[in-house]
Amino acid sequence: MATACEPIATALTLGLMAALTLHPDRLLPTDPAVRSIARRLYEAVRDLPIVSPHGHVDPRILRDDTPFADPTSLFLQPDHYVTRLLHAGGVPLQQLGVGEEPLPENRAREAWRLLCAHWDLFRGTPVRYWFDSELVDIFGVTERPCAENADALYDLIAGQLRQPSHRPRALLRRFGIDFLATTDDPGDDLTAHAALRDDPAVDTTVAPTFRPDRYLEIGRPGWPEQVKALGGDVGDYAGYLAALEARRRYFIAHGAVSADHGHADAGTEPIERHEAERIYRAARAGTVSPAEAAAFRRHMTFEMARMSCDDGLVMTMHPGIHRNHHPATANQFGPDSGHDIPTAVEFTHALQPLLARFGTHPGFHLVLFTVDADVYNREIAPLAGFYPCVYAGAPWWFLDNPSEIRHYQAAVTEIAGFSRLSGFIDDTRAFCSIPARHDMSRRLDAGFLADLVAAHRLDEDEALDALTGLVDDQPRKVFKL
Amino acid sequence: MATACEPIATALTLGLMAALTLHPDRLLPTDPAVRSIARRLYEAVRDLPIVSPHGHVDPRILRDDTPFADPTSLFLQPDHYVTRLLHAGGVPLQQLGVGEEPLPENRAREAWRLLCAHWDLFRGTPVRYWFDSELVDIFGVTERPCAENADALYDLIAGQLRQPSHRPRALLRRFGIDFLATTDDPGDDLTAHAALRDDPAVDTTVAPTFRPDRYLEIGRPGWPEQVKALGGDVGDYAGYLAALEARRRYFIAHGAVSADHGHADAGTEPIERHEAERIYRAARAGTVSPAEAAAFRRHMTFEMARMSCDDGLVMTMHPGIHRNHHPATANQFGPDSGHDIPTAVEFTHALQPLLARFGTHPGFHLVLFTVDADVYNREIAPLAGFYPCVYAGAPWWFLDNPSEIRHYQAAVTEIAGFSRLSGFIDDTRAFCSIPARHDMSRRLDAGFLADLVAAHRLDEDEALDALTGLVDDQPRKVFKL
Amino acid sequence: MATACEPIATALTLGLMAALTLHPDRLLPTDPAVRSIARRLYEAVRDLPIVSPHGHVDPRILRDDTPFADPTSLFLQPDHYVTRLLHAGGVPLQQLGVGEEPLPENRAREAWRLLCAHWDLFRGTPVRYWFDSELVDIFGVTERPCAENADALYDLIAGQLRQPSHRPRALLRRFGIDFLATTDDPGDDLTAHAALRDDPAVDTTVAPTFRPDRYLEIGRPGWPEQVKALGGDVGDYAGYLAALEARRRYFIAHGAVSADHGHADAGTEPIERHEAERIYRAARAGTVSPAEAAAFRRHMTFEMARMSCDDGLVMTMHPGIHRNHHPATANQFGPDSGHDIPTAVEFTHALQPLLARFGTHPGFHLVLFTVDADVYNREIAPLAGFYPCVYAGAPWWFLDNPSEIRHYQAAVTEIAGFSRLSGFIDDTRAFCSIPARHDMSRRLDAGFLADLVAAHRLDEDEALDALTGLVDDQPRKVFKL
Repeated sequence: MATACEPIATALTLGLMAALTLHPDRLLPTDPAVRSIARRLYEAVRDLPIVSPHGHVDPRILRDDTPFADPTSLFLQPDHYVTRLLHAGGVPLQQLGVGEEPLPENRAREAWRLLCAHWDLFRGTPVRYWFDSELVDIFGVTERPCAENADALYDLIAGQLRQPSHRPRALLRRFGIDFLATTDDPGDDLTAHAALRDDPAVDTTVAPTFRPDRYLEIGRPGWPEQVKALGGDVGDYAGYLAALEARRRYFIAHGAVSADHGHADAGTEPIERHEAERIYRAARAGTVSPAEAAAFRRHMTFEMARMSCDDGLVMTMHPGIHRNHHPATANQFGPDSGHDIPTAVEFTHALQPLLARFGTHPGFHLVLFTVDADVYNREIAPLAGFYPCVYAGAPWWFLDNPSEIRHYQAAVTEIAGFSRLSGFIDDTRAFCSIPARHDMSRRLDAGFLADLVAAHRLDEDEALDALTGLVDDQPRKVFKL
Repeated sequence: MATACEPIATALTLGLMAALTLHPDRLLPTDPAVRSIARRLYEAVRDLPIVSPHGHVDPRILRDDTPFADPTSLFLQPDHYVTRLLHAGGVPLQQLGVGEEPLPENRAREAWRLLCAHWDLFRGTPVRYWFDSELVDIFGVTERPCAENADALYDLIAGQLRQPSHRPRALLRRFGIDFLATTDDPGDDLTAHAALRDDPAVDTTVAPTFRPDRYLEIGRPGWPEQVKALGGDVGDYAGYLAALEARRRYFIAHGAVSADHGHADAGTEPIERHEAERIYRAARAGTVSPAEAAAFRRHMTFEMARMSCDDGLVMTMHPGIHRNHHPATANQFGPDSGHDIPTAVEFTHALQPLLARFGTHPGFHLVLFTVDADVYNREIAPLAGFYPCVYAGAPWWFLDNPSEIRHYQAAVTEIAGFSRLSGFIDDTRAFCSIPARHDMSRRLDAGFLADLVAAHRLDEDEALDALTGLVDDQPRKVFKL
Repeated sequence: MATACEPIATALTLGLMAALTLHPDRLLPTDPAVRSIARRLYEAVRDLPIVSPHGHVDPRILRDDTPFADPTSLFLQPDHYVTRLLHAGGVPLQQLGVGEEPLPENRAREAWRLLCAHWDLFRGTPVRYWFDSELVDIFGVTERPCAENADALYDLIAGQLRQPSHRPRALLRRFGIDFLATTDDPGDDLTAHAALRDDPAVDTTVAPTFRPDRYLEIGRPGWPEQVKALGGDVGDYAGYLAALEARRRYFIAHGAVSADHGHADAGTEPIERHEAERIYRAARAGTVSPAEAAAFRRHMTFEMARMSCDDGLVMTMHPGIHRNHHPATANQFGPDSGHDIPTAVEFTHALQPLLARFGTHPGFHLVLFTVDADVYNREIAPLAGFYPCVYAGAPWWFLDNPSEIRHYQAAVTEIAGFSRLSGFIDDTRAFCSIPARHDMSRRLDAGFLADLVAAHRLDEDEALDALTGLVDDQPRKVFKL
């Protein structure tokens, strides 16, 4: 490590490079009186274990504990937050290895150089904030990345990734992650989860999440074949329902606590049984119309709530994304390559059928996420402020940045109070960013509560209790951990 | 009183309870330089009389001056702001006596205990802020409510409610309410208002408000019967119009200054006379379609503007609420039981027919309220910044909290200036919260203006003038008091 | 000048008038630590030349260099920002000379008196902020306008307007405008631009902008006649396309860098060639339906992007305005008389066809402006954060005020970084407000960046680099200057 670090330290000493440091008060309010309250609050929760009830880490990484190949495959290739901004800045995705396996070293190094050379593109974004935290806290980087130190940084990080200290399980321990949910296909055999559960060396609970989207969208190309992955007899609608229920039970047996749903809208209008059967047959025959498929999907979202009332899986909804907005990129690089774009979303009317039927069902939990910030105070908080089942999911995806988190805090809390929040959800596939994301959230929550204390709207003991709740109690309660 | 207070003071002294106090600078900006400006501004208006041109206090309470029965029937049962958050927190509405008359003491006390035990649910909400103000300012409470002191607080408040000092009229005087509008059915005989007007002991002007919603929504079940309450010959459309006009005159004769309209949308498209007549006949026959009923209601909103131009009643609009979202609760507890949920609302296109015809009519006033905060800067402020009749109504219902009030202040003022604001509207049925709500508004207005002064965008003498305007002149001008 | 100034100075000295001054720290953050960072940042860019790539100054003013007639024709008559607020405040537009040529002195003076007497209507608005800057910086006014000093101010300003120092070209030099784009009809001969380009005494580049709206909206009354202004053979669709392409080339030859599009929505769905031909023929015959005209306009927006890919003109979009909301005012005073009202706008779906085809075309630039602030974080920033062609246009029209600019800064930057912003666009027809508007933007950008530095999210050297980029590099890069 010393060898790898040396050239960097020298360059910094020579004044060639800007220093990279993490200020202890970063993200806290700037007013001195408020900051000192925020500091006290933050200190009380900064080292609490991480509870991550929804995310996209691949469990096989943890099961296999294979060292990460290099900085590029760790930080760059799989993270569309990063690659999309580089793409917007003129860097072709193929140069970044998007959609590929770990690259040969020359290509990996070249991609890393592109990242460092375009470091200014990330100014002001949370990606930059998380990067800074990860580079300093996990890899001991002391220089701000740039074209000149790209290779030295690559060597420094690559060197550490080969050490036992930086293998996936070691990082998992170091990050202090108490609970980690992954996102999984209903047809997955969950052997990775079983192996992790049965391994006494793993302290973290790694739970699967039931994500049935593609099985419910029966008009998608290939659905008649894909649906068979559910197992069971999916030849008719009754068998399809039974297969879904069976897979949910299988997931629950493997530790799942929630089922996640991400469709174009939040519709939940049920249809008559015979109509559902008819549309199902049409889908099997490949003759279903888009309108029929949408109606069926909304009906099935209603059915998923019914199943959640029966089997206890927490229902989470992530609607309102236009997927694969740029078809040429989707064709070349696959899904999740950075061109999913939010759309307006509506919950009040869309959820009414579901909530009219299940809204007060004991034990039913429904967590609503949005990429359309307008609905926080217009729809989500009012719903969460009446229905015992509804929780306001933490800011998601494009909204997981300081200004939108502050908006969410105020918009939801002032209408529904703290008890209706989900607690922070990182929803990330960038494993190393998990601690930075949770730390960012704790700082922002501390700051928001400090503002309330400074405005004499809350006593500090209450703020402390609320903060501990947000960080620890609330996600455990909402996700039934 | 001393007896009732004693155990509380003791508990507090013993450190068992948290103190409840009101900081003199609460809600003012935290930056010391800005706060000192805000303090000066606030001091200048804090004791001005309250003008409340729109709300839901029952005038019979003031006419009869009967003591409030107990803390539960005063604070809890009728206030869906409170009961809905308790319901979301898992407390069944029946335990809170929602929809019932004052409860027997054991049930009232039990409901009050539930409120105190769930005090943390209200953290960060304006409900909590108003509660704190009311408990301290009106009842001298010195402890933060909790399960342990619930009974003592109940006794303390119940004891005071039996005193002459805490009867409705005494509080009305103490609150310094100069003008108080209620909300009334067009068929109401307004005898309570007449009695209050004729009573020399009542200094406050208590005015009715004409609220014809259910008479204009001709497709609602029961409408053919209900419409008869208008009096006159409502057998045909001409008679119906005449009856509405007559009831407006009756309201005006009893002091009404405004007519309030709260429908699903803000539509104002007129229809042809013969079409209105045809739909009206269909409604009488019970054969009107939902689309016809909606068209008729939009047409009648246009007609209401015409009548306002003729008779001078200020027109206020409160659109965009999905009423009775949870039918089972509506069936059991009635309307206004906490599950009305906002929806997106549109004004620009919807109001165009009305404004094209009446937008520059001398003396016509149209105040637009919204629960969809998106329209403040997109639609309401631009409309109010051109049409002499349009005023931007203060944040309403779910939006009457500090963060949304700040959003409104900036969003509307920067586009349309201060002169296009309605001034604060409490719109409350919680009588004791009126002073706290107006005080909150004055503090936030002072803070907003202090920000402008501190940013050197406004001189302090102008800020003071603007603040006095908002608190006193503007509501009197907008509502023609 | 001395004579004109004297009564003012005397009145002020006598304490009859309030002083008008510009505080050096105006609009900077109020927290002392943050303010000092902001000051340093602002100082570094305050005197940089102005780059104005989109606006509405009439180039003939600069070509002819005729002195401005009087304060009223300079500040009041042509500026609907000002006249609309006076109109809302009860001042009839005819008294302000809206839609008229410069007024006779008695009417001009009377209009000016109305402005000064209603100075309080502008409190809190950016109009007031710009006015203050212009009055002090350009005309040396030292008193806040009011009814009492209106005539003295009129004389003071009118006197200066007669001086060489205050003729249009002198002001242009004094303002430090490096690049100024106007907005022009495709049929314009651009002789004013040619004259300015060929005049060695003019240092500023004054470029036309291609604004084809009315040629693309083929259902508008008069279109069959108007379209002939394009020249060429517009008898069929092919000739129409060729004529548009030719006019674009003509504009480019006269220095144009962009084409601007302002329609009711952002639709870009192309239609089949034969269908376009058919609809075009119907429009020529005056038989086109509104739906066909809308489909054709969306198709032509797609075609405009294709042309931009071919000829390099930057494409800017300004959708979502309901024009001429009050027909009676439009009929009497013409367009742009203050009653254009924003509507909700949608980009994600609407732009998908265009971006699917041209989104990664090398050198294509598409700048998206909005009056619907909801789409900043929901649609514009996500699009700009992936597509290399998409830039987030600075806050436009009703949104060009401090609070919305701050919202834009945070909403867009946190999702897409600084590099995807257009830089400030004044978009004004109020010539004298250009420096004040750019100065406001620089102050707000400095403040926003100072906040990031104070929160330890950015180092100060980076903030300085980002600020210089926003003020100078970014608009030059985005508009290919």
